[in-house]
Amino acid sequence: MGRWEPGARERLMEAALQLYATRGYEATTAADIAQAVGLTERTFFRHFADKREVIFGGQELFEQLFVDGIAAAPDAAPMDMVASALGAAEEFFPDERRPHSRLRQTIIDAHPGLQERELLKLTAVAASLAEALRRRGVPEPQATLAAESGMTVFGISFRQWLADGEQRSIGDIQRGVLEELRALTHPAGRS
Amino acid sequence: MGRWEPGARERLMEAALQLYATRGYEATTAADIAQAVGLTERTFFRHFADKREVIFGGQELFEQLFVDGIAAAPDAAPMDMVASALGAAEEFFPDERRPHSRLRQTIIDAHPGLQERELLKLTAVAASLAEALRRRGVPEPQATLAAESGMTVFGISFRQWLADGEQRSIGDIQRGVLEELRALTHPAGRS
Repeated sequence: MGRWEPGARERLMEAALQLYATRGYEATTAADIAQAVGLTERTFFRHFADKREVIFGGQELFEQLFVDGIAAAPDAAPMDMVASALGAAEEFFPDERRPHSRLRQTIIDAHPGLQERELLKLTAVAASLAEALRRRGVPEPQATLAAESGMTVFGISFRQWLADGEQRSIGDIQRGVLEELRALTHPAGRS
Repeated sequence: MGRWEPGARERLMEAALQLYATRGYEATTAADIAQAVGLTERTFFRHFADKREVIFGGQELFEQLFVDGIAAAPDAAPMDMVASALGAAEEFFPDERRPHSRLRQTIIDAHPGLQERELLKLTAVAASLAEALRRRGVPEPQATLAAESGMTVFGISFRQWLADGEQRSIGDIQRGVLEELRALTHPAGRS
């Protein structure tokens, strides 16, 4: 390891997103990103395995927060444990992060390979949530149903949180979407 | 186009699955598949764009059946329209197709690239279902919630249909899983 650069990871990440957005993801190299913040390519690779990891590097933490949320949820019906775990999104996506997340999503949306990577990651999170529910004693198919429904609620809510003009927190949006799901699947809601 | 080979497509497909299962997907070439049923590589490429399409070539029809199911569903609550569309799975996966589908899934499960392809395809089907629901007047987020919940039900049911010793039809399994989803998200089910 070379010398430590204070805040290097965050500076590289911000510079990368700006370059991906303006110059294009494919056209931007690790050296470009490092140069933009006065660091060397070698420093870039001390912080990120490759230029894709700049976009997806936070997802292990995101997944762990959801899984920990299931482990820590009070004993309750499976969907209530999932709702409790979804609260982690509020910690991970505070409102001050919204501009950063919007820029990141713009880059992903412009690049099919990145969209696929994001989709695969969300699927992996759903599988980890289902495993966490089984550890809490939830049988199948309920564990997978609840985990995948939870990720459906998160995915729809996250998109809405990024929408132009949206002011609500991700937590408020998620609570509303979860209620919509309950209403949609409630037998009394049949017409 | 060269001369027409009766049943060539089906023979190529069966030979391909057998070779993918025994020799491995990566190690099998289009020429191997064609040779196994006494046809030329050129004939293979008249029927399939590449060796991956042998596995996924039926999915356009599968997607169209679901979308047509939404268009043809009686006016009802969104999840009931989705339940009606899921009936297409019974047409696409009759019980006599179960051994073929099991072999196909074994090959996909052994190969991450094919798993990704399948996942992306199911996501595309969910997006098409949501679009079909919007055409029926279902607003957002209900359309996407109902479509993705429907694909969750299908995915869990399809896996169960393939399980060793499973005797029920995919339709019977889907109806059971859909009831589990309704129970799981029903407020009265909270404990």
